[in-house]
Amino acid sequence: MRRESRLIWWIWWIVVVTALFLLGFVIGWFAKPTHSNAENNSASNKYLREFLDEMQPDQIREHLRKFTQLPHLAGTEQNLRYAEQIKKEWMEFGLDSVEMVPYDVLLSYPNKSEPNYISIIDQLGNEVFNTSLAEPVPEGYENVSNIVPPYSAFSAKGQPEGDLVYVNYGRTEDFFQLQREMNINVTGKIVIVRYGKIFRGNKVKNAMLAGAKGIIMFSDPADYWAADVQPYPDGWNLPGGGAQRGNVLNLNGAGDPLTPGYPAKDYTYRFSLEDGVGLPKIPVHPIGFHDAVNLLKNMGGQIPPNNWKGALNVSYRIGPGFTDDFKSQKVRMNIHTDNQVTRIYNVIGRIRGALEPDRYVILGGHRDAWVFGGIDPMSGAAVVHETVRSAGKLLSKGWRPRRTIIFASWDAEEFGLVGSTEWAEDNTKLLQERAVAYINADSAIEGMYTLRVDCTPSLHTLVYDLTKQIASPEDGEEGVSLYESWHKRDNWTNDRDAPRISKLGSGSDFEAYFIRLGIAAGRARYTKNKKTERYSSYPVYHSVYETFEIVEKFYDPSFKRLQAVAQVRGGLIFLLADSQLLPLDVNQYADSLRKYAQSITQLAQKHPEEMKMYEVSFDSLFSAVENFTVAARDLHECLQTLDRADPLQVRIMNDQLMYLERAFIDPLGLPGRPFYRHVIFAPSSHNKYAGESFPGIYDALFDIQNSADPEKAWEEVKRQISIAAFTVHAAAMTLTPPA
Amino acid sequence: MRRESRLIWWIWWIVVVTALFLLGFVIGWFAKPTHSNAENNSASNKYLREFLDEMQPDQIREHLRKFTQLPHLAGTEQNLRYAEQIKKEWMEFGLDSVEMVPYDVLLSYPNKSEPNYISIIDQLGNEVFNTSLAEPVPEGYENVSNIVPPYSAFSAKGQPEGDLVYVNYGRTEDFFQLQREMNINVTGKIVIVRYGKIFRGNKVKNAMLAGAKGIIMFSDPADYWAADVQPYPDGWNLPGGGAQRGNVLNLNGAGDPLTPGYPAKDYTYRFSLEDGVGLPKIPVHPIGFHDAVNLLKNMGGQIPPNNWKGALNVSYRIGPGFTDDFKSQKVRMNIHTDNQVTRIYNVIGRIRGALEPDRYVILGGHRDAWVFGGIDPMSGAAVVHETVRSAGKLLSKGWRPRRTIIFASWDAEEFGLVGSTEWAEDNTKLLQERAVAYINADSAIEGMYTLRVDCTPSLHTLVYDLTKQIASPEDGEEGVSLYESWHKRDNWTNDRDAPRISKLGSGSDFEAYFIRLGIAAGRARYTKNKKTERYSSYPVYHSVYETFEIVEKFYDPSFKRLQAVAQVRGGLIFLLADSQLLPLDVNQYADSLRKYAQSITQLAQKHPEEMKMYEVSFDSLFSAVENFTVAARDLHECLQTLDRADPLQVRIMNDQLMYLERAFIDPLGLPGRPFYRHVIFAPSSHNKYAGESFPGIYDALFDIQNSADPEKAWEEVKRQISIAAFTVHAAAMTLTPPA
Repeated sequence: MRRESRLIWWIWWIVVVTALFLLGFVIGWFAKPTHSNAENNSASNKYLREFLDEMQPDQIREHLRKFTQLPHLAGTEQNLRYAEQIKKEWMEFGLDSVEMVPYDVLLSYPNKSEPNYISIIDQLGNEVFNTSLAEPVPEGYENVSNIVPPYSAFSAKGQPEGDLVYVNYGRTEDFFQLQREMNINVTGKIVIVRYGKIFRGNKVKNAMLAGAKGIIMFSDPADYWAADVQPYPDGWNLPGGGAQRGNVLNLNGAGDPLTPGYPAKDYTYRFSLEDGVGLPKIPVHPIGFHDAVNLLKNMGGQIPPNNWKGALNVSYRIGPGFTDDFKSQKVRMNIHTDNQVTRIYNVIGRIRGALEPDRYVILGGHRDAWVFGGIDPMSGAAVVHETVRSAGKLLSKGWRPRRTIIFASWDAEEFGLVGSTEWAEDNTKLLQERAVAYINADSAIEGMYTLRVDCTPSLHTLVYDLTKQIASPEDGEEGVSLYESWHKRDNWTNDRDAPRISKLGSGSDFEAYFIRLGIAAGRARYTKNKKTERYSSYPVYHSVYETFEIVEKFYDPSFKRLQAVAQVRGGLIFLLADSQLLPLDVNQYADSLRKYAQSITQLAQKHPEEMKMYEVSFDSLFSAVENFTVAARDLHECLQTLDRADPLQVRIMNDQLMYLERAFIDPLGLPGRPFYRHVIFAPSSHNKYAGESFPGIYDALFDIQNSADPEKAWEEVKRQISIAAFTVHAAAMTLTPPA
Repeated sequence: MRRESRLIWWIWWIVVVTALFLLGFVIGWFAKPTHSNAENNSASNKYLREFLDEMQPDQIREHLRKFTQLPHLAGTEQNLRYAEQIKKEWMEFGLDSVEMVPYDVLLSYPNKSEPNYISIIDQLGNEVFNTSLAEPVPEGYENVSNIVPPYSAFSAKGQPEGDLVYVNYGRTEDFFQLQREMNINVTGKIVIVRYGKIFRGNKVKNAMLAGAKGIIMFSDPADYWAADVQPYPDGWNLPGGGAQRGNVLNLNGAGDPLTPGYPAKDYTYRFSLEDGVGLPKIPVHPIGFHDAVNLLKNMGGQIPPNNWKGALNVSYRIGPGFTDDFKSQKVRMNIHTDNQVTRIYNVIGRIRGALEPDRYVILGGHRDAWVFGGIDPMSGAAVVHETVRSAGKLLSKGWRPRRTIIFASWDAEEFGLVGSTEWAEDNTKLLQERAVAYINADSAIEGMYTLRVDCTPSLHTLVYDLTKQIASPEDGEEGVSLYESWHKRDNWTNDRDAPRISKLGSGSDFEAYFIRLGIAAGRARYTKNKKTERYSSYPVYHSVYETFEIVEKFYDPSFKRLQAVAQVRGGLIFLLADSQLLPLDVNQYADSLRKYAQSITQLAQKHPEEMKMYEVSFDSLFSAVENFTVAARDLHECLQTLDRADPLQVRIMNDQLMYLERAFIDPLGLPGRPFYRHVIFAPSSHNKYAGESFPGIYDALFDIQNSADPEKAWEEVKRQISIAAFTVHAAAMTLTPPA
């Protein structure tokens, strides 16, 4: 070769070598994933399918059978045994860790040597009638010991005597009507009310405020009897000898009454019983309708309006006291129930998150039951058990969720949501900073009709998406999704073509997580047809007749309904823990806020003149909602263009989504209720069960009818509107892109 | 070429090509950083040096001169003009955004047509002596208008008449001594107290609780006069005609008295003045010592103990009232000060964080001044101004901090930390979730001796590291670091060989950020020699004599001390915003907690018998501290082995560090003080200025001496110990590796 061509060859050679190297470099550079945690969505989806399919009716049946054989009241040996068994099995299923977490809390039990009962006494004080000391035990359980008789937990002790006054459901409005329209004063009387409509603790509080010296609650067939159904064991109606147990506290989220705000540990300061939160100062007792007839049948006084009449064959006269023929007779309550600081046990299981171990998704439900807990809570606990089993299976196949999942078996829910609240108090800082969502798992079934979901608005979309991937459990609906089945049976309302989802109230273990801490929360169960089945909860609620058999024979013989509920609860946990971007819908929150603002405005507009006189305006609230809506839309758009390969950006967005619910928390709490801190959702002060939106405004409006100083009452309405507007504005700010 | 050799050639060619490509690929693969945000520590260090060096004494001098020419009381036109000027200049310096943020808050001004003063009146009611209506104006400022005369902001209006009682500093213990040892009841009397030792609002509260109908506060030379120093303008002592302005609220962190807990916006509900927080119900007025002599000189009654005597040539008799010769004379206060809802303006500037825009580091200080604000606050505001200028310079060179920096010029600090508190309320959710640290920038100088730093324990190490990189401003200390200079002048105590750092109390704008929200906080300024200079704050504090000249002539003629303070404040902000790992030291927090636990135990052990009788134990607190110490050590170790190339792991660790301070917040607040929520640090109820550790326990112990029911008082001590132990345990949990 000539030198020249040799040179050209070398140049050419160098160019090619360099080009090749550069090509390799460039391809290498771009071939390398920027981030080790790039999402593998299809893998996650595949695992979701496996996770849902693994949950089996037969398994759930066996879990339920196993944990309903013996009574397991909170604080008893048997409930500890079940806790240990759950711990053992969760470890076997494959959780990373399971621990027992004890607290020493105030519980309440009947005195074993002095039974509780109610008497009619004659003028000599002789007992001419006594209510029953226990429910007739269902067949097959005759030899079971430790069945606690019906009682009102935390009742004051005492033996008050007096005339009876009947006050319908014992609601605030019932007492108003009694005092204002019927002119009856219950001071020094014993009131008798029927169960239903509102939480029993609210009835007791109302009776105390009205001056009653005792209160009796009975289950009226009008409220606890389904049409054309036999009483248990031939059907699922409440026998006349059955009665509803339950606590009668007014805790408003405080947890253990002696350690409000702090976990009940060994070193924790305890208030005296006199200073304890929410303990009633008068005796309280529950009875069935066989006993109620005997107390009501001879009552004198006015005949009440029809909506005060139940379905018993008595006139439901108001009293006070008995008719002339029985005038000398009085009623005496004999209540010897004891309060007692007692050790309880939560069981806490964990699956460590692979990428974000410091983000928690919680599935929690209680384990303690009044007796066997066939429905409440073990239908829910069996579902959690199956969820844990299925998750363990998945772990063994190599799956691990992005975030940490926590499973909880709470204790002492029946005594005021105590186990779950103490754990929330114990872990309050961690939860505040790290909890993504809490899914509740109380009773999984209360009817045979369709799904019922109560949850925060940001979870609506996820619930809909998920239920489309789950099969309907109803016979004859093969190939129909749970979503479709549910949609057909319970469409929202006129304004939205989707299955109905309701607001969270209280009365179960999500309370501390949602209303105190502001963690996105939801619950799901199978329910009755609310349009045709008007009874409260379900007929045998909190009675000895809540057995395994009532579920197996009547509520869910195939256990497919419980399977569907397991798939909903489990699927929510799975998607919240494993999705790269949190499946929380901020636009839905905006829509819901607008509806709530409209509905609270409508409530206020029942007083158009006062609104004008006191210059009450909701403009600031609507303007805040508008603000929130725009911010939500902007965030939603940001999410669409997010660089999902950038782990820091994903985390920043997820933080915004996670902390949205937290933004609705006001550390000052609602008026007089320091542990109810959620400005958008809380029960009203008049009924713990019902979730109200803008509860501060709601209560202020409620109080107007009751106030001696209307100007002051309207000032409080205005103050509450201002707090609501501020909170929604502040929440909107958290949705705005940072800095 | 032969076919064979051609083949070989091709093979060789393919091998080389492939090898080159692979080489390129591999190099490309490994050359690419795994994460886009890998730390470039040396670049950050270089920028820190440039940032510190850019801050210049001459610039600070000019900033100070510019912003001290006219009085700029909160709510006045002039203070708005300065705000606009600051906004304009911050934009010019190069911040990403600067906004004015207004609030409408309750302020308080003297009535222009009816001046405030105090008279001695004879029996006919004639004024035989009146206090001065204004301070003599310093030279050069004679033509300045809008100098507000000395007054007590938020004083009640009124003209109470009565006998004087002298109560030393008006502290709780002074009133105890007066009532218990001297047997003097001040009900219906006017008390006169000297300024100093505690916050003036506490004096007013004590006087109200004791039943006084008015309170006069005077500056005694014993407390506002340095030895061998001339009064201004020949020196920096307080002239006899000078008096200390100041608010006399007892807000306990509430901010605007009419909108506690919420930002004072247009839609915000406002309480009536009667329901406002912390407003005194009696007239209050401040005087200088020339006037004080006239009120004190004829007083009768007991001669007080020596520690009640100031440095005036009077006997400091207690009263009540005057000596026999002047018995018929009374004192009348004439106070016409008006409360008024007024618009104030914060100026908020931002530098957007490059990688974590949702993490905020805040440098804030107030702008409003009682008159010119030569020291308070403009020596601090000038320093912030210079910090912003230097940061802008850096931005123009391509630097951008990892996290967002927020600069704040607060309004209405002098009226109860109102501007900063309203902004904290407005942004409460964002701050709670995103704020890394708050550095306060009130007066940058109060003496000529050395550095003074008050900060949370986790910042100690950073302060030490930083001050080693800053030069001493003292003459003759060339080549000596600020750390060394400071260390030499103010070594900690026997137990630690390092410059002293104190606890944060209150009395400046960090309050809402630190004590309400739990954001790590600190402050730094130049100070006097506490061992030899015993006067309170600095002599001309809150008088008209706080001019530019007093700084230029006496406090910092070279402006190097202010430069050093600028470098400390600015350097803290820089390192907190730009370090990959947050420079917060958890081990130091553990050490401090142990010391605090020991010292509060010692305080309790002054009552050994009661400790035994009521079974008071600090064991739970020490066990919590032990727990915390172990967790801190573990976290510290984790940090050493952290994969800094993994952005998610870095963020998770930083979250733990950031949220540590938050973990000490109790949403229930301290007893009776809902906005003081920090369980480790808060002022005692008896003096807003002094930071106490474990303030709940401290106050409970304080109350023991004052309690009619010692058992109940000790129960409260036990309750507070339990809360402290819980809080430290909970904080320890946040340090434990997640899940």
